[in-house]
Amino acid sequence: MCKRNLEVCFSPAVFHRFENRGAIVVIIDVLRASSAICTAFANGAESIIPVAEVEEAREFKKRGYLVAAERDGYVLDFADFGNSPYNFTPEKVAGRTIVYSTTNGTRIIDISSSSYATVIGSFLNLSALSGWLVSQKKDIILFCAGWKDKFSLEDTICAGAFAEKVLESGSFYTICDSVHAAMDLWSLARDNPMDYLEKAAQRSRLRDKGLDDCIPYCLKTDITNNIPYITEGVLKLMPVTGYPET
Amino acid sequence: MCKRNLEVCFSPAVFHRFENRGAIVVIIDVLRASSAICTAFANGAESIIPVAEVEEAREFKKRGYLVAAERDGYVLDFADFGNSPYNFTPEKVAGRTIVYSTTNGTRIIDISSSSYATVIGSFLNLSALSGWLVSQKKDIILFCAGWKDKFSLEDTICAGAFAEKVLESGSFYTICDSVHAAMDLWSLARDNPMDYLEKAAQRSRLRDKGLDDCIPYCLKTDITNNIPYITEGVLKLMPVTGYPET
Repeated sequence: MCKRNLEVCFSPAVFHRFENRGAIVVIIDVLRASSAICTAFANGAESIIPVAEVEEAREFKKRGYLVAAERDGYVLDFADFGNSPYNFTPEKVAGRTIVYSTTNGTRIIDISSSSYATVIGSFLNLSALSGWLVSQKKDIILFCAGWKDKFSLEDTICAGAFAEKVLESGSFYTICDSVHAAMDLWSLARDNPMDYLEKAAQRSRLRDKGLDDCIPYCLKTDITNNIPYITEGVLKLMPVTGYPET
Repeated sequence: MCKRNLEVCFSPAVFHRFENRGAIVVIIDVLRASSAICTAFANGAESIIPVAEVEEAREFKKRGYLVAAERDGYVLDFADFGNSPYNFTPEKVAGRTIVYSTTNGTRIIDISSSSYATVIGSFLNLSALSGWLVSQKKDIILFCAGWKDKFSLEDTICAGAFAEKVLESGSFYTICDSVHAAMDLWSLARDNPMDYLEKAAQRSRLRDKGLDDCIPYCLKTDITNNIPYITEGVLKLMPVTGYPET
């Protein structure tokens, strides 16, 4: 069987260089969009509508939707809550459709909409998503959200953890330096990711705003088997029967 | 004294996010433009005119200039030689002005022309350039050339080596995740960079074309004290009296 290609993209500004319509794109925004989305589905959310613009989120709110929206870590005044995974409790989200607007996360969902499939990856669904990725006969692009186009350590070590798991299957090859860098950084971080990320800029940004309480949770592996994916612009839970288009 | 900011940029596609007109930009293209440029000056070159376009290089050749030009590792038919530092021998380059066109290197020289100063960094001039950078009262952006906007391991570990040296001075701070990643990868590579780069895509590309003979040379540290810098679009040797604009 032909091996499939594994790549890591460190920045939305470079994603156009990875264009591969046959690939599955894994969006990784560990602090905090990916982790929040995985948590929402783990707690029973029906679907999530990602929106890029504040005004769009405000319009949805007027129409009665539950809205999670923030910019640069601050909850927008009209929103029901912000971006912390702790907000997406079963009481709030079970059975609901949530409109979700963040600084980074929705932007890269938009960018990657032309790929074969787009799924959400975090430490929280690491093993389940890795297993599914291996089961598909597709190339993979692990797409780190970063921060305003810049490289981020937390997304990179998570990409390294995914890369390690899918390469272990023997079904993939890589000629991508970013894959090696991500795995090497993960090798340094894996024993204590919380300590490793002490130097990460996003950790300082969240701490400065008193929003860093959720970081240990976001670094937990395998608290859910859910795989969020994008279909017609909306995030849904992957059916147990598999990705609908396969 | 106010500490200065140190950043690493992993891709020309992200450089606009680092814009800082007060900063010194260090262009790092280890395999092979930076190494070739440092070698040319070490061997007595008078100046180097970087050009981005093949046709521009051809015009210079017609006017009698010595031309080093290649694309994707292949020497262009009209050029005197290509991009290997081994081509820039004293016999060929001493006292001469060389027109230099490469896949990556000249492009980022162009991008960075709006900064306070632009210098060329490689392992070959690591200590000399680091010492000069520390002596200046300026922010620093270590700018990795990469490959077609993608991340490259060899440029990153070199940026990590520079970052380590300038941070040791105590005169710099960083809140840039790329700096930490580059230093962490350098920590894994430093004992044997040649072994570490076995997995690097550029090493395979050069090997496939029989152009990898110069890699051990490009990974040598401190074979020259020369600091090439750009002035009015031309690469010159930094005068011993220091950067002219300071």
